[in-house]
Parts: sequence; C-alpha cells; structure tokens
Amino acid sequence: MTEPNAAYKALEAAFGRAIRIEEAAGWLHWDQSVTMPPGGAEARGEQAAALAETAHAIVAAPAQGERLAAADAGDDPWAQANLREMRRRHAAATAIPADLVGALARAQSKAETAWRGAREASDFQAALPSFAPLVALSREEASALGGALALGPYDALLDQYDPGRRAADIQPVFDRLKVFLADAIPAIVDRQADWPADAPIRAPASAQREAGVALLRAIGFDFHHGRLDDSLHPFSTGTPEDSRITARWDENDALSGMMAVLHEAGHAAYTRGQPLAWRGQPAGDAAGMTAHESQSLTYEMQAGRTHGMSAFLASLLREIAPRSRVTVDSVERSLLRVAPGYIRVEADEATYPLHVIMRFEMEQGLIAGDLAPADLQEAWNAHVEDDLGLPAPDDRDGCLQDIHWFDGAFGYFPTYTLGALAAAQLYRTAAADLGRDALEAAFQQGDYSSLTGWMRDRIHAKGCLYPSSDALLAAATGSALSADAFEAHIRERYLGRG
Amino acid sequence: MTEPNAAYKALEAAFGRAIRIEEAAGWLHWDQSVTMPPGGAEARGEQAAALAETAHAIVAAPAQGERLAAADAGDDPWAQANLREMRRRHAAATAIPADLVGALARAQSKAETAWRGAREASDFQAALPSFAPLVALSREEASALGGALALGPYDALLDQYDPGRRAADIQPVFDRLKVFLADAIPAIVDRQADWPADAPIRAPASAQREAGVALLRAIGFDFHHGRLDDSLHPFSTGTPEDSRITARWDENDALSGMMAVLHEAGHAAYTRGQPLAWRGQPAGDAAGMTAHESQSLTYEMQAGRTHGMSAFLASLLREIAPRSRVTVDSVERSLLRVAPGYIRVEADEATYPLHVIMRFEMEQGLIAGDLAPADLQEAWNAHVEDDLGLPAPDDRDGCLQDIHWFDGAFGYFPTYTLGALAAAQLYRTAAADLGRDALEAAFQQGDYSSLTGWMRDRIHAKGCLYPSSDALLAAATGSALSADAFEAHIRERYLGRG
Repeated sequence: MTEPNAAYKALEAAFGRAIRIEEAAGWLHWDQSVTMPPGGAEARGEQAAALAETAHAIVAAPAQGERLAAADAGDDPWAQANLREMRRRHAAATAIPADLVGALARAQSKAETAWRGAREASDFQAALPSFAPLVALSREEASALGGALALGPYDALLDQYDPGRRAADIQPVFDRLKVFLADAIPAIVDRQADWPADAPIRAPASAQREAGVALLRAIGFDFHHGRLDDSLHPFSTGTPEDSRITARWDENDALSGMMAVLHEAGHAAYTRGQPLAWRGQPAGDAAGMTAHESQSLTYEMQAGRTHGMSAFLASLLREIAPRSRVTVDSVERSLLRVAPGYIRVEADEATYPLHVIMRFEMEQGLIAGDLAPADLQEAWNAHVEDDLGLPAPDDRDGCLQDIHWFDGAFGYFPTYTLGALAAAQLYRTAAADLGRDALEAAFQQGDYSSLTGWMRDRIHAKGCLYPSSDALLAAATGSALSADAFEAHIRERYLGRG
Repeated sequence: MTEPNAAYKALEAAFGRAIRIEEAAGWLHWDQSVTMPPGGAEARGEQAAALAETAHAIVAAPAQGERLAAADAGDDPWAQANLREMRRRHAAATAIPADLVGALARAQSKAETAWRGAREASDFQAALPSFAPLVALSREEASALGGALALGPYDALLDQYDPGRRAADIQPVFDRLKVFLADAIPAIVDRQADWPADAPIRAPASAQREAGVALLRAIGFDFHHGRLDDSLHPFSTGTPEDSRITARWDENDALSGMMAVLHEAGHAAYTRGQPLAWRGQPAGDAAGMTAHESQSLTYEMQAGRTHGMSAFLASLLREIAPRSRVTVDSVERSLLRVAPGYIRVEADEATYPLHVIMRFEMEQGLIAGDLAPADLQEAWNAHVEDDLGLPAPDDRDGCLQDIHWFDGAFGYFPTYTLGALAAAQLYRTAAADLGRDALEAAFQQGDYSSLTGWMRDRIHAKGCLYPSSDALLAAATGSALSADAFEAHIRERYLGRG
C-alpha cells in the first residue's frame, strides 16, 4: 500500500478550502432564492462574485499546478479519483480568467433577479437587457474553456455538468428518441382517449405544504438534516449534513407540487448519501448532473408513478382536498396521462424529452452565436408549435418558464433526459435485485427506503470514484447508458407491452 | 486636492474583497440562527471557518502591510478615515495567527449550537464542554491581540467592539451609575408602589408577528430592503441593501416582543443608513457597538417608552389581544414599571445597567482567568442575589439567557450601557433640535421618521469618519459621552424632576 505524498496532501487542504467556500456560495444562493428581500439583489451579486473569485483563485493558483505535477495519490483508488477530479477542476479553472469569473457571477445574479420579475410579468423583453450580457459572457467562458480543454465551446460547458459527455454522442440518442416518441406518443394518446376527464385536485398552498412534509417523512427525508421551503422554481441544494429542497404550490393542481417534492427529494437523497469519508473533497461530490437527474427522476418518474405510489399520493391528497373526489385511479390517470403541454417540469414522462431536446438545440445555438438572445422568444415559440404541436405560449409559460439559462446554466438541460434514460436503467436493475413486487408494495405506504438503500450503495456512496456518469452507471447496472431501458419502460407502462 | 495614491487604491480593492466575504459569513450566520436544520451545524462551522480564515488572510497579508506603509489617502477626510480603519484592521488581523482564526470560528459555531440545546433544557452543564474551549481560545485571542496592540487582554477585545474604549475608563462611569441607581431604583419602586397590577398581554405568536410587521411599517422599516424573522435570541444583521431583524414571541407577554422589534429596528436603521459612497469599505461601516446600541436603545428606550409610543403600541396590541383590556395607561405602566428581574433583554431602563455591570465584571474574570468557565453558573447566581436582590434563577433565566459569550463575544456587553448613556445624550439633542413635543406627537402614529432622519444625518451616514464612537457622539451632541443625560432622563421620566 503506497501512501499519498506531501504534494497530494497539500492539494487536499487547498481544495478542501475551496469546496467550503463553494458551499457558502450555495447557501447565499439558497437565501437569494428563498428568503432575500428584492432590494438585496445587487449586493448579493457582489458577495457571490467575491466567493466565486476566491474559490476560483484557490483552484487556479499556480501552486496547485506545481503540486498536481508532483502529486502521487498512492494506490487507494479513492485518492486517485480525488487527484483526477482535482486535475479536472484545476484545468477548467485556469482556463477562465479571474475577472470573467467575477463578471459571470455578477451577471448571473443580475439576470436571475430580472428573470423573477420578468416571469411574474410574463415579459421576456424585461429579462433581455440582463440576459443578453449573460449569454455573451457564457460564450466567452465556453470559448476559454474549450480552448484549454481541446473541446468545442458547447462541449466544454457540457463537460462541466457531466464530465466526458459530448454533444455528438447525445445527438444520435436524442434523434432515436425523437423517432421512438413520434410513434409512441400518438399511440399512447390514442389508448388513453377513453379515459375519463378528472377534475384537478384543488387545495390551499398551506395544506399542500403540510402534505409535502408528510410525503417527505414517508419516503425517509430527514428533517434533522434538511428543510422544505417555497420558491419560484423548485430546486435542491446543500450538503450531506443539510440537504434542502424547495417547491411551489399550484392551488389548482395539488398533485404537481407533490411530484416536484419527489423530484427534488431524489436530488436531496443523493446529496445526503455522499461518501462521508471523502466529505469536503472533490471525490466526495456527486458524479455530475446526469447522475443527479437519474436520482430525481427515479424518485419522481420511475417510483413516483407506480400504482403503489399513486395509492399513497391519493391517500395524502384526499385529506387536503376532501371536495376533489380523489381516487387511486384518478391520481394514477393524472400521473400517466400523456399530453403535450407547455411546462417542462409538469410534463409527462413521454413528452418530457421533447422539452429537453428543443432546449438542447436552442442552447447550442445561443452558445454558437447562431441564435441571438433577442430572438429566443421567437425560436422558442416556433419549437413549441413544431415539436409539441401547440400554439405559441405567453412568455411565462414559454421562454421564461425555466430559471436555468437566466442563471447562466448552459449545457445542463440534456442531463434531464440522459438522467431519465439512466433512471429507467437503474430502476430496472434495482427491481431485478430487490423484487419489483416487494419494492412497489412498499410504495403503497410511501416507503422508499429499500430503493434509496440500493441507490445509496451503488450511486450515492460512490461519489466521484468513477471518471464519468457512464462508468458509474455501467458499474451499477452492468451496461452502458442507452435508451433501451427507457423505451422498454414507456412501452410497458403506457402501451402494455414489454 | 490631493488624490489617493496607487498603494491606497490597491488596499481599497483588497479590503473590499474581504468585506464581501465577511458579509457572506454574516448571511451564513443568519441562516444558522433562523433556518438551518440542527444536523447542519458541524458543516456550517467548517464553512464559517473557511470564510473567516479567507477574509483574515486577505486583511493580514504582508502585501497589505507594505501597501499601508506606502499608502497616501490624499486630503479627502473620508479616504483618510478609510486608511485609518484599514490600518486598525490590519494590525488586529496580523496579531492573530490564521489557525487561531479558524479554531475560533469552529469553536463559536459549536458553542452556539450547544447553547441552543442547553438553553432549551436549562442546563449549563450541557453547554460547558463546548463553552470552556471557546473561553480558552478567546483568552488566547485576547493575549495575542493585546500583545500586538499594547493593550491588556480584555481591553484588546473591547477595542474590537468599540475602538478606543478601555475598561479603566468604563469602570468609574459604571461605579457612579451604580451609586446613582442604588438611590434611584428604590425611590422609583416606592413611587410606583400604588400602581395597579396590570395583567400581562396575551396573544398568539402569529398575531404578534403580524403586529411586529405593522409596527415596523409604521416606524419606517423598508421591507424591500429587509426582513423580520423568528429566532431564539433577537438579533439584527445585514447590509444597507438587506438589513434583517429577528424577534421571539412570548405568548404570555406580547409587549416584550414589540420592544425587541423596536430595539433590533434601531440597529437595522443604522445599518440601512450607512454611507453608500463608502459601501463595501471600512469607512462605510458602523462606528462600533456603542454607537450601534445608542441607536437600538434610542428606538426602544428613549422613543419607545414615551407617552406617544405607548399610545401607538396600545392601539396595535388592542387588536391582537382583545381580551387583555389593553389601555394606553396599562401599556405605559408596563413600559415604565421598574422592578429587578432575571432577563436582561426584558429589563426596565433603570435596572438594565445592573445586568450589564455584572456581566462586565464576570467577562473580565473569564478573560483574566480569575473566573473558570465551570464556575460561571455559581458566579452568575451570586451576582443575581447580590446585585439584583433576587433568588438564584434556573440556567435558562440565568447564565444561559444570552447568546453572546457562547458566540465568543467577550467585551461586547459594556456597549449596551454605554449605548444607553449615548442614546440619552443623542435623544436630548434631537429633541432640542426638532422640538420634543413635535417628535413625541408623531410617535402617537408610530412615526419615527423625523427622529430617524436626524440620526441618519448625524450618526448613520457618518460611518467610520470619526476615530471613535466618543468623537462621533461629541460631533453629534456637542459633548463627550457621560452619564449626565442618562441620569437626568431617569430622574425626569421616573422621579418627576429634572
């Protein structure tokens, strides 16, 4: 057994410091999204920029380059993975000049704040003056990163969310999926044509919040180490010790808030299950956003739309909406009904990839410079008509519906659908290991514990031990990421054939 | 007009960065006190330590020392004040080794968390294992600071809260005050002997919170730039753009929450009124804690206990406690009734200094090593018997009532009573300038605007322009800090003679 050398130890100390500062930035962002009064936005941007610049300076410091050249992690595969992740972070950080880091943090903070107001007013033009500079800075970032990593600009951004992932590998998967869905969606819609129309489940926000808490307790969310709050866009953030989620409550559709809770709780479970032996080190982190979405979509889609979970959700919703005639069947129909709609986060499993694929196309255009920020609204509405077959939406339900681009996250959207494919593959393996019937019987009580335990061992606790989410998935399921399991799942669940 | 030189400009950039990181640390602390789930405490301690160490490293860097030696601020008195504050901060930072900074931040975070549990359980022994190491580290800090600043250890801590203040100057002021109060308190109690006993004002916490919001709106608190939240110990924190306060609600005493709101709103008004031209620089900060408490105590004590404000508070409380027979007279009696009690933050104006003086004595003992942390409970209870004439309290109402020491704040308590003296002096001057009757007539509508405007010009907007809070007070009132105005105020308000 070879021990790590001194250069490696010095890197651990430096990256540990940077990670704590990034965690602090995460809490400032949580506060900005959940509690901060609007007047605090500009100063918050300065604070966020100072933290981003400081963490960046540590990771990009020439001293780390010298240590990386001299470092030996010994023969512990975890330490080796940690060193690999440190190299990756150092390479990315040195590619981006410090002033660009600060400018990006400020521009993100500003655009996100403008987005809140613009979305409320359903007015893309109100967001554009702060969105356009953010796109320009993101293009600069993409070029700088691409130059240093020998990748195209968009691939360089993608690589930050899902190391090793390339647009050229995604495209054929998405193309095939589009062909599959072009057949499957009309067939499903046809099969569901005689389903009765169920009235939406109406309940006050406060009652939904309480039901959300009950749901979280049932699935094993630990409130000693987490919180549930309200925000304009549901999200999850935090650390293994304090893993928080947010949701929003539509008083005309109580089920949608519950599914958002399940989605975010999947992220939170991943965060909570990170390997504590590598806490505060790069190797202890999650394996990128495709892996993260595989967890949220397992919770929300794979497990969350089973018959057992429909029964549990019906029991929760019946209590808060006694007038809405909630039945297990009506909940199950709501969860499985396939119909193109405007809102990605409320989309059914079958049409969801269409939302992602159109965003994948548009964000490549934004980063390549083929799509000007000012033309986003028009491009969006054209996609809605062409890809979803719906008339053009207003901006609130259109190009302003998602926070991501206004928060500077380009290259993130594809991971939702890649995560959905991974979730199908993981759930199929988990069901084979644990017994599908036993698993789904537990869901009748909202009990996710054996599913979470399985994911903890194979995904959560693996941190960044593997060099990519594909390698992690292959270790967990025995095969590389493909659309096979997802397509089989859609056929089984929606078309009654395997 | 001479312009600042390049060395000065470089200092501005460096200190600006450090201040943003300190602001970020302030938000992490707010979150820890208001929203963080208990399981997050240890990781939060690490994040706080990383920010403290990072800000400290910037301020203490040898590069700043070299720049300070070469810096010329030109002839703008604000830039000169900024340079003076940078020198002060650099001298203090270089005195404390980096590892002590981190150890203190971790120990504070740990002791504060333990204090929350121990206070709940009223068990000092539960807090002691994390309190004792914090005292040891604070003594180390005091020695290191004292060595570098040529001050005694306790004075060195005091100087961090109120630059230029020395224990030897405080002692005669407190001694004289003790003599004055030894006569005044029994005389006041005697005068109030025939006051009817008023039933406490009972109201649910939620109604009190709403009344707190109404009170804040009336006095001019800007919710676009601030928040009101609940916490175990009321506090105020933030920046001019986002100045937050917290309160706690005693369902058996609705008036106490309102007065805590007024107190914290005084702090928040000071923060909100800091000079924006010097935002993010040392000169733009508040002039220490005596100046800060002069604002909170003006709001809570000087203005908050006038007849006009009693009438306004009665109108608010009548709405939330319709059964409690609230009258202007009953509220005024509650606010002016003098009676030694256990809780500092609920103490009347006359006995409040006794609470502070006993803490001043004990914390000098803790820092000198004459009082062992393990003996604090015993010392506290002896003081309660000797100084307040009350039987020994339980720990919750005794040595665990205040967060300060468990948060590592030694040398802070005297500023409450120095602030009370300053508040009396400021209010006397403000009343002479604005007309006492006009001022107090506005309070009948809860309107603090002219008082706040006066303070904004003379105190808030002055930042750290003056080298000490005494100099600031002298500029605002024409005379140095003394107990004269406070004693006259007590005689006028409570003994009916000027």
